[in-house]
Amino acid sequence: MLGIMHRSALRNLMVGPTRMLTTTRMLTTTSRRPAMDFPCIDRLETRQRDLMAGPEPTYEKVVTGYEVFGHEEAFACDHGGVLPRLDIAYETWGRLNAERSNAILIHTGLSGSSHARSHARNTRAGWWEKFIGPGRAIDTDRFFVVCTNVLGGCYGSTGPWSVDPATGARYATTFPLLTVNDMVRAQFLLLDRLGIRTLHASVGASMGGMQSLCAAALHPERVGRLVTISACARSHPYSIALRFAQRQALMSDPNFKRGFYYDGVQPHVGMKLARAVATVTYRSGPEWEQRFGRRRRAPSQPPALCPDFLIETYLDHQSERFCLQYDANSLLYVSKAMDMFDISRSVTDRLAAQRARAGRAAPVCITAADQPAAAGEEDHSLPETPDEITRDLVAGVSAAMQPTLVLGVQSDILFPVKQQREIADILRRAGNDRVTYYELDAMYGHDTFLIDVVNVGAAIKGHLENTI
Amino acid sequence: MLGIMHRSALRNLMVGPTRMLTTTRMLTTTSRRPAMDFPCIDRLETRQRDLMAGPEPTYEKVVTGYEVFGHEEAFACDHGGVLPRLDIAYETWGRLNAERSNAILIHTGLSGSSHARSHARNTRAGWWEKFIGPGRAIDTDRFFVVCTNVLGGCYGSTGPWSVDPATGARYATTFPLLTVNDMVRAQFLLLDRLGIRTLHASVGASMGGMQSLCAAALHPERVGRLVTISACARSHPYSIALRFAQRQALMSDPNFKRGFYYDGVQPHVGMKLARAVATVTYRSGPEWEQRFGRRRRAPSQPPALCPDFLIETYLDHQSERFCLQYDANSLLYVSKAMDMFDISRSVTDRLAAQRARAGRAAPVCITAADQPAAAGEEDHSLPETPDEITRDLVAGVSAAMQPTLVLGVQSDILFPVKQQREIADILRRAGNDRVTYYELDAMYGHDTFLIDVVNVGAAIKGHLENTI
Repeated sequence: MLGIMHRSALRNLMVGPTRMLTTTRMLTTTSRRPAMDFPCIDRLETRQRDLMAGPEPTYEKVVTGYEVFGHEEAFACDHGGVLPRLDIAYETWGRLNAERSNAILIHTGLSGSSHARSHARNTRAGWWEKFIGPGRAIDTDRFFVVCTNVLGGCYGSTGPWSVDPATGARYATTFPLLTVNDMVRAQFLLLDRLGIRTLHASVGASMGGMQSLCAAALHPERVGRLVTISACARSHPYSIALRFAQRQALMSDPNFKRGFYYDGVQPHVGMKLARAVATVTYRSGPEWEQRFGRRRRAPSQPPALCPDFLIETYLDHQSERFCLQYDANSLLYVSKAMDMFDISRSVTDRLAAQRARAGRAAPVCITAADQPAAAGEEDHSLPETPDEITRDLVAGVSAAMQPTLVLGVQSDILFPVKQQREIADILRRAGNDRVTYYELDAMYGHDTFLIDVVNVGAAIKGHLENTI
Repeated sequence: MLGIMHRSALRNLMVGPTRMLTTTRMLTTTSRRPAMDFPCIDRLETRQRDLMAGPEPTYEKVVTGYEVFGHEEAFACDHGGVLPRLDIAYETWGRLNAERSNAILIHTGLSGSSHARSHARNTRAGWWEKFIGPGRAIDTDRFFVVCTNVLGGCYGSTGPWSVDPATGARYATTFPLLTVNDMVRAQFLLLDRLGIRTLHASVGASMGGMQSLCAAALHPERVGRLVTISACARSHPYSIALRFAQRQALMSDPNFKRGFYYDGVQPHVGMKLARAVATVTYRSGPEWEQRFGRRRRAPSQPPALCPDFLIETYLDHQSERFCLQYDANSLLYVSKAMDMFDISRSVTDRLAAQRARAGRAAPVCITAADQPAAAGEEDHSLPETPDEITRDLVAGVSAAMQPTLVLGVQSDILFPVKQQREIADILRRAGNDRVTYYELDAMYGHDTFLIDVVNVGAAIKGHLENTI
């Protein structure tokens, strides 16, 4: 192969305008010259072969032991699609009291499952294991705790991986676009089924903090207290950019096939890349400086283009673990829902109108791609000035008068503290005089809410249990 | 295809533990359900076809009108490779005075060419067009300005795209690993050829600021003044992580072929992705909030998974422009050199020892892959405590007593101001009492040095022209 390249390269050799090639020296010396090793690419190719030989993915095996609420009626989505029915996977901890007043709904981040804490039917540690339990931040001796897999996810709730009853095939990218509000409305259908009219609190971090804010603003009479951590009132273009890069990584994978990969090989390379980018945005510089510094995997070996510094092997390992554990289409749909999140009144009103039209017009599932552009019908202009934006946001949360805890982390790049300050600010401007705002100097960046049980845990516990 | 998927999906249908599938409803309703559109993937596929039909890339056509200095002797690289000869592309502006004392060497960032400013042989605007010229920050009425394409680049200097005289084939990933110090040493060979013993100043931003610091520390007698902007004394694990993600995007592209893609299709998809990630790290949140906010490309159309928000179309456009303009192997090698940059004395000493051994042992080019691990021979331990790290850095710059300007930008994520403070700090601790440190609150992030001619330009001019 090198021989072929050699001749071709010579044939095609472009000589720059003032370049003098010392052709006399060419080929007069020979040398050992092996190409660089690429063990990281070898591994991707091995996995590709394994996956081609192996069975279809079964994300349901990643998380087990959840309950499923089946809603057998049409569900009109904000952006015009209608799902003929839906499932919501959920888990619960603690006991609902006689008054049915002690429920706490926990909302997950992008790829979270309902498995927030271990229990008899799934003893693996949950993603918020240390935050939930007897005496813990969310005290299961006091509260009945519910956590769901979001609509659009792949851990038991209806999402792109689900089978469309209308066709018997998986939805893939015929699935309708979703919003955070769609996710919250599906959760409240579950609460209805569970006989929970009013939540003691709605609690979430990251996308979960978007959901909890959305729940508090849209169902103020059903949400007693609000906790929103490392979240925002509207997604910032910088966060959109970071998720855009992840989605592009995924969609550029030749295995993605516009979302119709369920019968073939999953876009595992794109998923791995997307997760590597995501992990960089989830953590922080100070943590990595302390944890990895400039240390290398094998200091006595020559440097390499494949993972070499410890920070690189860490990222490689993190993304390797994830790439077959979560459905690529779910990542697209749920991350897009995050991009579109904006609690502004004008946005909420427009979506409600769209939903109403879709619900009337289409009894079965249609996708956003079907939805005729409502040109001329609607005003798509956005508020332009900072003042207009703020007014629109204040109007969007004007009903959210619950005691509220807003938490921000100074090392968070994905949801910078400016965005949590904005949440506290708009709630206060709307007249909410029970807003607590804490800013942590924790060094785990966006992921602090998963790790810092001392500071984040105590803030939550204080807010949930304080008699006011 | 949908029909096939339909049957197969049914066959493989996994039913969750507590899931009740309402099979009675399946297939009882039909619906229009087109899949989502993916115009961004259509475009990638079109380009793939075009590239398969088209000629080899010629990066030399991207930049023209430069001079080439050919160094016809072996060049021993820090990490053990030896290049049998090398070319350095360069451009100059202004006139060298009779004393040969008015030269300024400008160092580029990662993908920069020697074309910092337009001139008769290339009238296109250069990458620092507004910073160089008569009366400008770098005044061509006073100074003789030199800018090179770095060793390892693809715009006329020797790099992976170059033809190896030993084989007649392009180096590809047989090219030896490079360091910032290798780049600087190649530049000083050019200065020797130009008869420039002493520079009035060494000036650079980003990787250029690593080079200028390196030049000032390693050739203190040849560098009169130092300007280092948005750079660092040692790469931080967070920056390494961000570049790791870009390299992975590139190497994961099936067209990459371990670097031997010159006879085939370039890894254009990976390059585009890498550039999208890079662009996010080059700019800042505040700028994008002001410039794009949450505005969408086509507000009256339904949301889409392909570029939709203006920030997404901007990133798409930026990365589209870049993906065929720069050689993927150069991106790997040069970004890896950035990762390895560390001005600490222990690192510099170790590399010098390696270089000396390689120069003795191997008269022709060998790559890092050839280099036997010097196990037991060397101490690869790193300083561990912050104090040890600082002492090692101070020792590394102990010769750099030039008047120095260090510039940092508060919105820079890739090279946060902490790193520029560190440069100023270690220089002062080393005894340099002419260190100026400015911190800008400019909102263009890392790219501020390319844009903010008012603030960055004036700081440079003041430093270069101030009689002290």
